[in-house]
Amino acid sequence: MQYFKNPTILKILDLYKDIWALSYTSAVNHWDLETYMPSKGVGARGEALGRLATIRQRMFLDPAFVKLINLADKQKLNDPEKAAIRVLNREFKFYTKIPAKFIEEFENLTNTATVVWRTAKEKEDFKIFEKPLSKIFDMNRQMAEHLGYEDSPYDALLDQYEEGLTSKTVNQLFSNSIPQLQTLLKQITNSKKYQKTHWLENQKYDRGEMSKLNDKILRSLWKDFDRFRIDVSSHPFTTSFGNNDTRITTWYHEKDFARSILATIHEFGHALYDLQSADSLEMTPIAGGSSLVIHESQSRFWENHVGRSMEFIEKFLPDMQLAVHGSPLTVHDAYLYFNKVSPSLLRVEADEITYHFHIMLRFEIEKDIIEGKLKVKDIREVWNTKMKEYLGVVPKKDSEGVLQDIHWSGGSVGYFPTYSLGTFLSAQWREKMSNKQIFKSTNYDKTKAWLEQNIHIYGSIYTMDELLKKNKMKYDPSVNLNYLQEKYSKLYEFKFFSQ
Amino acid sequence: MQYFKNPTILKILDLYKDIWALSYTSAVNHWDLETYMPSKGVGARGEALGRLATIRQRMFLDPAFVKLINLADKQKLNDPEKAAIRVLNREFKFYTKIPAKFIEEFENLTNTATVVWRTAKEKEDFKIFEKPLSKIFDMNRQMAEHLGYEDSPYDALLDQYEEGLTSKTVNQLFSNSIPQLQTLLKQITNSKKYQKTHWLENQKYDRGEMSKLNDKILRSLWKDFDRFRIDVSSHPFTTSFGNNDTRITTWYHEKDFARSILATIHEFGHALYDLQSADSLEMTPIAGGSSLVIHESQSRFWENHVGRSMEFIEKFLPDMQLAVHGSPLTVHDAYLYFNKVSPSLLRVEADEITYHFHIMLRFEIEKDIIEGKLKVKDIREVWNTKMKEYLGVVPKKDSEGVLQDIHWSGGSVGYFPTYSLGTFLSAQWREKMSNKQIFKSTNYDKTKAWLEQNIHIYGSIYTMDELLKKNKMKYDPSVNLNYLQEKYSKLYEFKFFSQ
Repeated sequence: MQYFKNPTILKILDLYKDIWALSYTSAVNHWDLETYMPSKGVGARGEALGRLATIRQRMFLDPAFVKLINLADKQKLNDPEKAAIRVLNREFKFYTKIPAKFIEEFENLTNTATVVWRTAKEKEDFKIFEKPLSKIFDMNRQMAEHLGYEDSPYDALLDQYEEGLTSKTVNQLFSNSIPQLQTLLKQITNSKKYQKTHWLENQKYDRGEMSKLNDKILRSLWKDFDRFRIDVSSHPFTTSFGNNDTRITTWYHEKDFARSILATIHEFGHALYDLQSADSLEMTPIAGGSSLVIHESQSRFWENHVGRSMEFIEKFLPDMQLAVHGSPLTVHDAYLYFNKVSPSLLRVEADEITYHFHIMLRFEIEKDIIEGKLKVKDIREVWNTKMKEYLGVVPKKDSEGVLQDIHWSGGSVGYFPTYSLGTFLSAQWREKMSNKQIFKSTNYDKTKAWLEQNIHIYGSIYTMDELLKKNKMKYDPSVNLNYLQEKYSKLYEFKFFSQ
Repeated sequence: MQYFKNPTILKILDLYKDIWALSYTSAVNHWDLETYMPSKGVGARGEALGRLATIRQRMFLDPAFVKLINLADKQKLNDPEKAAIRVLNREFKFYTKIPAKFIEEFENLTNTATVVWRTAKEKEDFKIFEKPLSKIFDMNRQMAEHLGYEDSPYDALLDQYEEGLTSKTVNQLFSNSIPQLQTLLKQITNSKKYQKTHWLENQKYDRGEMSKLNDKILRSLWKDFDRFRIDVSSHPFTTSFGNNDTRITTWYHEKDFARSILATIHEFGHALYDLQSADSLEMTPIAGGSSLVIHESQSRFWENHVGRSMEFIEKFLPDMQLAVHGSPLTVHDAYLYFNKVSPSLLRVEADEITYHFHIMLRFEIEKDIIEGKLKVKDIREVWNTKMKEYLGVVPKKDSEGVLQDIHWSGGSVGYFPTYSLGTFLSAQWREKMSNKQIFKSTNYDKTKAWLEQNIHIYGSIYTMDELLKKNKMKYDPSVNLNYLQEKYSKLYEFKFFSQ
């Protein structure tokens, strides 16, 4: 594919490099904030990042820059050129529709709210967080009004995270999937083989050995550590400073080693998207993957379809055994542990089936608040009621309930649904690659090459719909359902009859 | 002291915060570049940092900003306000005198030159580096012409690193000190106790234990690791993102553990300056220490007067013994090792006496090239001749000779003399504090408090001369000479007769 050649686009990309440089250096500062920054550095860091965001906005709204974008928009462009304009226009519209004062106020609010959220979580008291959270939802509703929408103000927020996503679509997807997942869950919990807990969950592990194992896993999946690294943070994440410097983090707890391994391989899936995107897209608005759903489909593919597979577990079994101080492990036992299904309180610990109930709960609550049908002061009660209804468990502490996620404190409303949508899609990639005999062993070279050529290399050139079309695919959550039904009916030894 | 209250100054400081934010985020990127960045990330990092430097320059030259500086310059200001204008004016003059195109070209040149320098050093071939080095000296000469000077163009370069420093001053200081240092060196090498090498230099150490020891040393000197940290890099350095986040690095080699300890405590001395500077100066142009000579006087104080002292060595002797795999150590032996004097090839490994010969050599070469009396192609020969003359040793490899320092490849010409000047001054702080009975044990609380109250808290409010005056002191390298004569005549058991 030939990339950028239109002279107006080339001028735009040259000017854009300043904006890119601000994003790039900010991203490095964010990474440092989450990994190595001494805690008291947070004040200056927040101030500096806030200033850079404002400088960036000013550059974006520079009339000379805007004029070029408008000019290019009327010209005949190839796919990457069109995409660059699409992405720039999205951001430009955001900056013109949302007053600068509003952005600054929102930035300050979320900076404070994150600190308040941490305190509230530590003290197990939602009341402490209620006021800033109300303000965050208020401002999100105002943001929706600024941005505009057709049906629901929540749609304007969903669109911020996944271009074109609406609550109607999300509703439809959930109403197709959730009842069948509920049936599946019931069959699992009713099966003779069902165990509420697995002994390995409570097995303490050696952190040094686990760290070595994570490293070994990554090196088996990716050779070039001159453009990739792993660190530790309080919550795992991936950040990319371009395809020559993409980083992930993982976490370690005292026990339950699968959490650390699955986090590592999940983040690797995100990283691979950025590592394998085309060089020619670097430093442009369409570098790396942008659609959150596609991104999550990559991380979930590696986490669930690779990390939870028998072959993968078998490959690293001796290392896992070493990590749990030599406790004897059989492949089957470890496989059961990695694939244990059990309703639980925490989203980040949820299995492949109950995960989506957690997402639906958040989606419904967010939507109801933004549409004015629910008040923030009542969230806690609604949360607990819904947990009881969907999963049969009720949080005893707010840290395991309404206060568990960082998203709201950071101002993100409308983000959660992309997690489920991406997970559904991951099963479609698996099916596609399995049909082509590409995805079938623990040598993942062909898999990586296929993902590179059909997804990663395009960076953000295509929207999700365009990319699926290009791959002759249609978004279809039933593929995920079939995968789950087949896998878990076998594991828990029951026959699955779909409703 | 009351800090900023003049309304014009307050407006300037508010605008300056954007400039500060660019410096701050760039500094974090530089730290990452030297510590954790995957090596292939260097291209994008260089591009991003270059862009930020240009954005910063544009902001500095914004007519509205310049107008305010000129306005404030005519008003009645207190010391910190005057200092802010002094520092801003210095940078403003640099930007107005040096064409933007020149700065960009110089930036690109030094980015490339650093890579070429590394290759040349690896291949032990000065020829490879000759061309970019000639260009760097050429551009430095042009820079001197742009900046203006009275006597020598080299003065314009010295002034970049230490305000007001001239080659005349440096010449004078060296011609007062060097002959006496040469006499002292001769007496040491002639003494019966003189040993060319010490067995501990070749003793391999355990890196894990050394890392623990460095940590223990730092924690004995500084409690608050919520605003301080240590990492590893190829060359030790200190960087400060404000007094709430100041970081040092150290290095580890296979053997010769004192290098690691002394590097750690040297950088701690730099860090302490920034950690103890006044809160009110944060995010202003005069935050942290700025005079390189004062800064070096701090690092050298901690390195030489603390790190090389009998008391300090005794305190950490058991840990040192552990680091060298339990080889028995006596305090006296370790003290001899830390204070071994012996002419050697590498500046960074030099002892307290021969160090200054290394600096004088670089000073003379730099000055001669900038004044057109020496050509870059002849540097290697002159270097080797001078090494023979001053130290009696001749490099067999360029990596241990003309290619050993990173400074020139980074574009810095005129920097080296600050190392000697700072070292000379460090002995004056020692004398002052010893006279006040402040500096006398391994509890350094009083020492730190004195340094804080009399130096650090002022950040960059005062120039070196002003700060010395404020402390009722006069710059006097003979204090350092006396200290060295007393210390080493005792150690090597000879009587010192000054010439």
